[in-house]
Amino acid sequence: MRNYAIGVDIGGSSAKIALVNRRARIIARASTPCDPRLPWRRVLRTIAAAAAGLGRRSNVRGVGVGCAGCIDVAKGVVHFSPNLPLWRAVPLKTFIEESLGLPCILDNDVNMMAVAESRYGAARGALNVCCLTVGTGVGGGLIFGGKLYRGQAMSAGELGHIQVEPQGWSCNCGNRGCLERYIGRDGLIRLARIAMRGKRSVLTHVGELTPVAIADAARLGDGVARAVWEKAGYYLGLGMVGIVNLLNPDVIVVGGGIGNAGNLLLNPARRIVRKRALQVPARHVRIVRAALGEDAGVIGAAAEVFARIKP
Amino acid sequence: MRNYAIGVDIGGSSAKIALVNRRARIIARASTPCDPRLPWRRVLRTIAAAAAGLGRRSNVRGVGVGCAGCIDVAKGVVHFSPNLPLWRAVPLKTFIEESLGLPCILDNDVNMMAVAESRYGAARGALNVCCLTVGTGVGGGLIFGGKLYRGQAMSAGELGHIQVEPQGWSCNCGNRGCLERYIGRDGLIRLARIAMRGKRSVLTHVGELTPVAIADAARLGDGVARAVWEKAGYYLGLGMVGIVNLLNPDVIVVGGGIGNAGNLLLNPARRIVRKRALQVPARHVRIVRAALGEDAGVIGAAAEVFARIKP
Repeated sequence: MRNYAIGVDIGGSSAKIALVNRRARIIARASTPCDPRLPWRRVLRTIAAAAAGLGRRSNVRGVGVGCAGCIDVAKGVVHFSPNLPLWRAVPLKTFIEESLGLPCILDNDVNMMAVAESRYGAARGALNVCCLTVGTGVGGGLIFGGKLYRGQAMSAGELGHIQVEPQGWSCNCGNRGCLERYIGRDGLIRLARIAMRGKRSVLTHVGELTPVAIADAARLGDGVARAVWEKAGYYLGLGMVGIVNLLNPDVIVVGGGIGNAGNLLLNPARRIVRKRALQVPARHVRIVRAALGEDAGVIGAAAEVFARIKP
Repeated sequence: MRNYAIGVDIGGSSAKIALVNRRARIIARASTPCDPRLPWRRVLRTIAAAAAGLGRRSNVRGVGVGCAGCIDVAKGVVHFSPNLPLWRAVPLKTFIEESLGLPCILDNDVNMMAVAESRYGAARGALNVCCLTVGTGVGGGLIFGGKLYRGQAMSAGELGHIQVEPQGWSCNCGNRGCLERYIGRDGLIRLARIAMRGKRSVLTHVGELTPVAIADAARLGDGVARAVWEKAGYYLGLGMVGIVNLLNPDVIVVGGGIGNAGNLLLNPARRIVRKRALQVPARHVRIVRAALGEDAGVIGAAAEVFARIKP
């Protein structure tokens, strides 16, 4: 009875929706466009309709929704979402509950990913886990003692705003030298442009400089591209030294589009952690790539339904 | 019945011992020398004798001991303590239990302080608290959801080893630019020597340059001394920005000998946090001086007895 949950992962261009069982297996899935120019009601109505099509509601415990931005978890409100600039104070939980007649929980998308990776993915079985997503921006989710840690105002886990250069590049947040400025999409491309100056590299020939192009070039042995990942990994490693010394986690999981570069990014970061973090926590931490890929968001959202909504 | 606990705080030169009631009130206290040249058995025997003299054992729930260094909380063993270099793999818990016939718990001294300040001191009522002690070194204790957070290998909370200058002064830990190197005793004095170069200051006349002398000079209006605290507060603030962005705590408590400089150190740190940390967590954090002073260790140790040992 009610052994299924619906997980929803709202992104900047589309929303993923999945019917998930208690073992985190995806039974059915759907995807809807998520046009940032449309009013939120229309977007959520489409999502609700797609969710309703996935299975018999009598078997479903509830709906879990992950969304980037500033989220009021208690009230189920999206205050602000960077990918959906028209969304302000959106009462998502209430709207979904009324549309589907099912209880709904809402959380930050990286928190949902952290739940998924720590329960079913790369950090399965670990109690204390830090998850980073490295893509356009750098986000984070923290699991302490097997549970999501949110902090006082639900804003904990801003791993992208660990400072790695006190007098470094300015960040939108008002500070300087935040990790996100160096290894987020724009930062990585900036590192590449700097590395390319006056150097021979296949990167000078690519149509558009993207993280994927830089990763491909590095895998082909391009020296400049390898140096870019080495530098990005250095900054990621500095950020991780702070995490390791402060939090002594079992596992640090790295996901997201740029995280997909895998060991190109993680190996230099691991070297910095071994060299610079305190010995005891450095010896005990595993630094691994996310295992659930694009499905982490919906799996985590469903897992939180089972954890927080009683049948 | 058994509504009292004995709290012990083992320091580098003396151990404080107190009989504490369930409201964290100290009923009786004692102090014994803690000679680092003596074998650990002799030191602990003296502590046990002093503890036994404090009250009727039939009323005592147990003994809580806080000690600096590398502690195995589960086994109750002091692996290594910086103040007591002869102590190696000391089975403190077993020894105290056999000496006194009472259950014993052992933890890091800063963890005990964090427990005390978060339950009865400067962060009373707060759920998520970061405690820093700033003295010879810089230590930390983390309380999440009202409970001590220890991490995977019990080494979490090394707030002194947050990196505030990636290419800064080398630290004993092998890294560069750790917070401790700038605001711990030696670091503060080094900052003062740098600030004094070619400048007029009452500090050039003091017999021995100490944190207390630098604080006194600053309170008298000495410009160089004020600049030293400004600089130390800048570094402390940078460390706090990391803590605030990562952990979104309710309160950051600052104690320890150098922490006693109070607002000389905390005001510049608060300014850096307001300027550089993310707005939401920066707005919600209180940065305060420790309230329990020298008693925090014994009060926290006793509080942990009541929390962890059932009557």
